[in-house]
Amino acid sequence: MNSSHTIRTARKWITCAAVFSTVLGASFASYGAEPNLTLSAEEQAKANQIFFQRCAGCHGVLRKGATGKPLTTDITKERGYETLVAFITYGSPAGMPNWGTSGELSEAEIDLMARYLLNEPQTPPEFGLTEIKASWDLRVPPEKRPTKKMNDWDIDNLFSVTLRDAGQIALIDGKSYEIKTIIDTGYAVHISRISASGRYLFVIGRDAKINMIDLWMKVPDTVASIKVGMEARSVESSKMKGYEDKYTIAGSYWPPQYTIMDGNTLEPLKVVSTRGMTVGKQDYHPEPRVAAIVSSHYRPEFIVNVKETGKILLVNYEDIKNLKTTSIEAELFLHDGGLDSTGRYFMVAANASNTIAVVDTKEGKLVKLIREADGVGITPHPGRGANLKHPKYGPVWATSHLGDETVALIGTDPKGHPDQAWKVVQSLEAQGGGSLFVKTHPNSTNLWVDSPLNPDEEVSSSIAVFDMTKPDAPFEVIPIAKLAGLKEGARRVVQGEYNKAGTEVWFSVWNGKDQESAIVILDDKTRKVKKVIKDKRLITPTGKFNVFNTREDVY
Amino acid sequence: MNSSHTIRTARKWITCAAVFSTVLGASFASYGAEPNLTLSAEEQAKANQIFFQRCAGCHGVLRKGATGKPLTTDITKERGYETLVAFITYGSPAGMPNWGTSGELSEAEIDLMARYLLNEPQTPPEFGLTEIKASWDLRVPPEKRPTKKMNDWDIDNLFSVTLRDAGQIALIDGKSYEIKTIIDTGYAVHISRISASGRYLFVIGRDAKINMIDLWMKVPDTVASIKVGMEARSVESSKMKGYEDKYTIAGSYWPPQYTIMDGNTLEPLKVVSTRGMTVGKQDYHPEPRVAAIVSSHYRPEFIVNVKETGKILLVNYEDIKNLKTTSIEAELFLHDGGLDSTGRYFMVAANASNTIAVVDTKEGKLVKLIREADGVGITPHPGRGANLKHPKYGPVWATSHLGDETVALIGTDPKGHPDQAWKVVQSLEAQGGGSLFVKTHPNSTNLWVDSPLNPDEEVSSSIAVFDMTKPDAPFEVIPIAKLAGLKEGARRVVQGEYNKAGTEVWFSVWNGKDQESAIVILDDKTRKVKKVIKDKRLITPTGKFNVFNTREDVY
Repeated sequence: MNSSHTIRTARKWITCAAVFSTVLGASFASYGAEPNLTLSAEEQAKANQIFFQRCAGCHGVLRKGATGKPLTTDITKERGYETLVAFITYGSPAGMPNWGTSGELSEAEIDLMARYLLNEPQTPPEFGLTEIKASWDLRVPPEKRPTKKMNDWDIDNLFSVTLRDAGQIALIDGKSYEIKTIIDTGYAVHISRISASGRYLFVIGRDAKINMIDLWMKVPDTVASIKVGMEARSVESSKMKGYEDKYTIAGSYWPPQYTIMDGNTLEPLKVVSTRGMTVGKQDYHPEPRVAAIVSSHYRPEFIVNVKETGKILLVNYEDIKNLKTTSIEAELFLHDGGLDSTGRYFMVAANASNTIAVVDTKEGKLVKLIREADGVGITPHPGRGANLKHPKYGPVWATSHLGDETVALIGTDPKGHPDQAWKVVQSLEAQGGGSLFVKTHPNSTNLWVDSPLNPDEEVSSSIAVFDMTKPDAPFEVIPIAKLAGLKEGARRVVQGEYNKAGTEVWFSVWNGKDQESAIVILDDKTRKVKKVIKDKRLITPTGKFNVFNTREDVY
Repeated sequence: MNSSHTIRTARKWITCAAVFSTVLGASFASYGAEPNLTLSAEEQAKANQIFFQRCAGCHGVLRKGATGKPLTTDITKERGYETLVAFITYGSPAGMPNWGTSGELSEAEIDLMARYLLNEPQTPPEFGLTEIKASWDLRVPPEKRPTKKMNDWDIDNLFSVTLRDAGQIALIDGKSYEIKTIIDTGYAVHISRISASGRYLFVIGRDAKINMIDLWMKVPDTVASIKVGMEARSVESSKMKGYEDKYTIAGSYWPPQYTIMDGNTLEPLKVVSTRGMTVGKQDYHPEPRVAAIVSSHYRPEFIVNVKETGKILLVNYEDIKNLKTTSIEAELFLHDGGLDSTGRYFMVAANASNTIAVVDTKEGKLVKLIREADGVGITPHPGRGANLKHPKYGPVWATSHLGDETVALIGTDPKGHPDQAWKVVQSLEAQGGGSLFVKTHPNSTNLWVDSPLNPDEEVSSSIAVFDMTKPDAPFEVIPIAKLAGLKEGARRVVQGEYNKAGTEVWFSVWNGKDQESAIVILDDKTRKVKKVIKDKRLITPTGKFNVFNTREDVY
């Protein structure tokens, strides 16, 4: 299994799903008792909660579809109750999880969700400045905070680690591997971001709760928190020279909007709706969710990706009362992305469109849409991607894919390598689909590719690593979960992250809430285990963010 | 009645309305049979149409209120059926028309509308690029149009006159006063605008239909038409050097959006939703309608006023695929406005907020909000306003008001008269409230003030004129309708408009659809009648737009 030729099953996922759904439709939809479509208030509340926690991320609260299929009642009624039950129970190879057979939802809950889906989606309430402000908790105002760093931590080499199901983060020292503190946060923190000064850490939960953590305190802790909606994924801090730590921005899934806050207090200053017209057809979408946000180094701008409209907004924060925005027509289903090695170009996946969009953040316009026909794989999921030096093609940016085993390498050097610029110069084949993140470091020649959502447990519990000095050579597989000595559970290996020096790479072994998880640290040169962190407090670790690398956009 | 001291009734309108509604509420709401709230499909369709034609303009299709009060069901149910019937029948002194006693709605129709208002508002369908494009009719493509002017008309001195209830415009020669042609248009054309070259005339109906008329044809006629929604008010053409005639923009009331079109064909290129957060409270508004649009002379920008959010958008048309917009926080209920005499500053009424906002179109930001406490009157309604030279205070911009008899004169010369800039330097008192338009011309010292919606027929059928060399002197009243020899009907005198030379001023005498109307032309120096145009084709004439003055923003 240390070759790129052994496992190719995942490329066919999408096609399989179509067949699967047809079979199910034929066998289930035509018989069975009529389900009771009337939900009690209690059932409605429970179904709303399950839908938020399990379904809305991919399907949208109005169920118009994005990474997941649309689930509007014209579709669900045609499929019928039994088909819905089967889909929720068994999942589909296209990426729908098997909520029933995995034990995450009971039969009664699945029955409830199938009936829920046969009812019209309810538009959740708005969450404007009034509600946002009411949620704002300035626990320690700036004047009561330390005036210098009060601890002896090497905060630049600290890791902020999401403890997903615990609703917490752990701060872990990058040298001693010690868990320095655990901080309560929102539900399932999606990302950590660092202010330009390196002092403040921002984390955002899927429930749209932001914690602002002061790393200068004796024991770093939350100094302010706020909720920017009911569901969210992204937070970022202003990084342009002259605006360091000045503003914080967060993007919400529901309501579809972004909020600009004071960077020192999280006081909400400006809420901007992202509802509007889609690219291409230019029809109105009621739920254009804010996906990744990145801070530009070339202009005083946030780069805000609006998923369902396919528009990339360059939001200029010089004067937020007279707010300048450039709305770039890109492609539907923008999801996540990052900057190239120079920081000038923003590379973002329109994932359900199998497209990578390239934006010139200096000129403020679209450079290129790189599509499936150009060599992009199925459902790219770069995270922020990985910037590498390819021996033949020069600087490239890499993304792996949810929908197939490939890793696309895209040329990012229009001056030095104009023929390769914004083209897929090589498509590596890693272990399989279901990949979430690739990772490298400027001081390393390794490219690490995870595949935590691959249905094959051997694939999802290990990592592939390419030596980028020999990109045509086979990759090596490191069985991370096995090396951690974990035997039970899904043991999904997810999201490599380097230490500040680029000498060690960390992986999470993400297990069930009641199972043992771990963080495994490899020596980057030898690819051998240097440390396994196990601790009963390490519940469902997923994303890890090294303070320095995150702040400086090193990836 | 030729003095500013005789008539002051209108100032108290708003207060009266509160009393009036309280009395009605007490006397009607507490008794009477329960109305049947279920509407048949036929009734629903009829009520929708009446609501669109009579009510939506002020109250909004979702009934959240703007110039008119909110009519959401929490409010209508509290008021009750009888109160609604009384209001619709008798109107209110706050500006609600007396649809019943005027004979415009029957008792059965009023019953229908009261029941309609007790039901939840229905959200009308969307009207995106697909629907807009389907409505596009390119009757004469550019290559089939004349290459030079084919008529001997003095098109610079032509007047485009709305024939409101006929769904037409008349083109009238400014010298011979001859009706050169009548052109079918949308319903109740709201404004006429001219392309920068002077060749193309754009008119937009309240039904959102735009006609593009080629003034070079032997007999000018429509060369393209399109519908940009279900309801609209504004159209404008790009005027920046290098972009003459390149783009046309139209703002819609429903759906709340604007559309950028090819300036030569009306091909729709870009549709942008205006749904979003209000200024101040920053809560989400589902129906932020596009009111006035003006073309900047300082930048390649359209100035787009969004009523319910109170935001002024500077929409840059250099690159509409990477669309740059500056969203200026102004004040709720932006309605109409115009440029100062230099063209640099945009003055716009937030009418239901009794506020004038000033935007620097060169710097792209808000300069000032001038409020009631600063001397602005009740519900300012400037149209585009009037630019005058005040003997004491220098260049000023004037607006009259719907809600009182005052005319606010606002200093617009921050360099030459810094102490007066953006202040109400004088408040004239004209005949009464219910004014829609003021008018002057650079070659004139007269300031004409209409008051067509004043409840006093003598006031609504005449015009007040100030000599601006003596702004403290009493105004003169010219009984326009009487001078036209019209004896029957409301004979509302509305919207002065100058000829190109500024030597004559035209007024419409706007009568009922089945009654005789007229256009009265006064000599500007003598203020005597020079011509009365009467013609059976002149059905309900309202707005008049001189081609040169409109194109060059002379007002």
